[in-house]
Amino acid sequence: MSLIPLPPSLIPFLHQFLPTPGSKTFVTLTYAQSLDSRIAARPGVQTKISHLETKTMTHYLRSEHDAILVGIGTVLADNPKLNCRYNGGNSPIPVVIDPLCQWEYAKSQLHQICESGQGRAPIIIIDDKSMPSQDNERILGLQGGRYLKLPLLSNRTNNWSIILDVLYELGIKSVMVEGGAKIINELLAYKEPIIDSLIITIGPVFLGNEGVEVSPSRHVDLSNVKWWSGIQDSIMCASVEH
Amino acid sequence: MSLIPLPPSLIPFLHQFLPTPGSKTFVTLTYAQSLDSRIAARPGVQTKISHLETKTMTHYLRSEHDAILVGIGTVLADNPKLNCRYNGGNSPIPVVIDPLCQWEYAKSQLHQICESGQGRAPIIIIDDKSMPSQDNERILGLQGGRYLKLPLLSNRTNNWSIILDVLYELGIKSVMVEGGAKIINELLAYKEPIIDSLIITIGPVFLGNEGVEVSPSRHVDLSNVKWWSGIQDSIMCASVEH
Repeated sequence: MSLIPLPPSLIPFLHQFLPTPGSKTFVTLTYAQSLDSRIAARPGVQTKISHLETKTMTHYLRSEHDAILVGIGTVLADNPKLNCRYNGGNSPIPVVIDPLCQWEYAKSQLHQICESGQGRAPIIIIDDKSMPSQDNERILGLQGGRYLKLPLLSNRTNNWSIILDVLYELGIKSVMVEGGAKIINELLAYKEPIIDSLIITIGPVFLGNEGVEVSPSRHVDLSNVKWWSGIQDSIMCASVEH
Repeated sequence: MSLIPLPPSLIPFLHQFLPTPGSKTFVTLTYAQSLDSRIAARPGVQTKISHLETKTMTHYLRSEHDAILVGIGTVLADNPKLNCRYNGGNSPIPVVIDPLCQWEYAKSQLHQICESGQGRAPIIIIDDKSMPSQDNERILGLQGGRYLKLPLLSNRTNNWSIILDVLYELGIKSVMVEGGAKIINELLAYKEPIIDSLIITIGPVFLGNEGVEVSPSRHVDLSNVKWWSGIQDSIMCASVEH
């Protein structure tokens, strides 16, 4: 898919929600949802929700972050490129949360993208009890990526603090979290303030009640709310209250 | 709650979605939802989602319809006034879908509103096997309202066609359907094209996964999509594809 130029009004609209330097990793949570808060029509099924102008925004936002983070469910469902295709933008480092080490990186599209110089090798965060195959570990290492073992399964209530602390130590000062639903719901309801900017694209469609839903386990208030409307989609930017 | 003047840009924005004359009752489906597509924080709990400018829009829209239709769940949860408080606007006729005849009309706020001349007496649609109390029937009749018996429970797949045909015969040429979730989900997924205009207010909040959800039983596409953004809320108007 080729992208269109970013609508000029989006740049000032997004400006105040872009990463700023701080003493911890700046977290932008961003995803596209249907009116009925579904991010996919069925579990494991990649579903187009955003249109070209808002898709372009996603790539612009990627260029403004050090890393892009997704969960293993998204990776297995979408086999994504996780690079930046916005004109002249740098690709962020992909960070994949894969506690059980399920991802066959060597067979992925991201692996091919990196081989052809169109993207960056990922950091794959696995549980410290998991073990990558030698093949995947070797191939990932050759491309400059790495596996990172963290005590994820023994620290479920504290996972995101652990992950973000380690990313900060690795020099990742901003991360754009794109999904999937499990990660989005966890971050929204996390016990500590963790999301710095929330950027949601709403596509004018109902995906229906068998879709994959975003809805956190508790009430979440927002502040600093701004809306932008495109030809088909609307975008909401906000800060998350805690 | 006193209303504010309608933001001037809303009137032309809404214009093309207002009722037009036709050979059947024009149906506007309108409701306010959270980002996670909840219309209430819990079943039976009235939840404020829209803000003052979009709340004013609801009353403006009421003034443009012959009737306003809600389900018994909404009536029991909210004890609503179902009148039009928009400056100079006429109140529509309330239509309440109450198959099992659960509503104690004589004890309702709507009854008081009608007694004080601030609203209109409702049409209460019940199943033809249900029986209102003599007291409710008498009081409703004195105010100019009525019970209407229809074969609802024996014709579940066809309910909405039956209801709308009867409303048209009664001279109701336009109806604004406001909820609750069961009715909204049924109308969105109905087997025949039934919604003429869809007007959704999205409030910038997550009500959480125990909330009352709008999500139809199937994929629903929209066309003719327009967005309007206010200070806090966004409004989407559209036509429903079939």
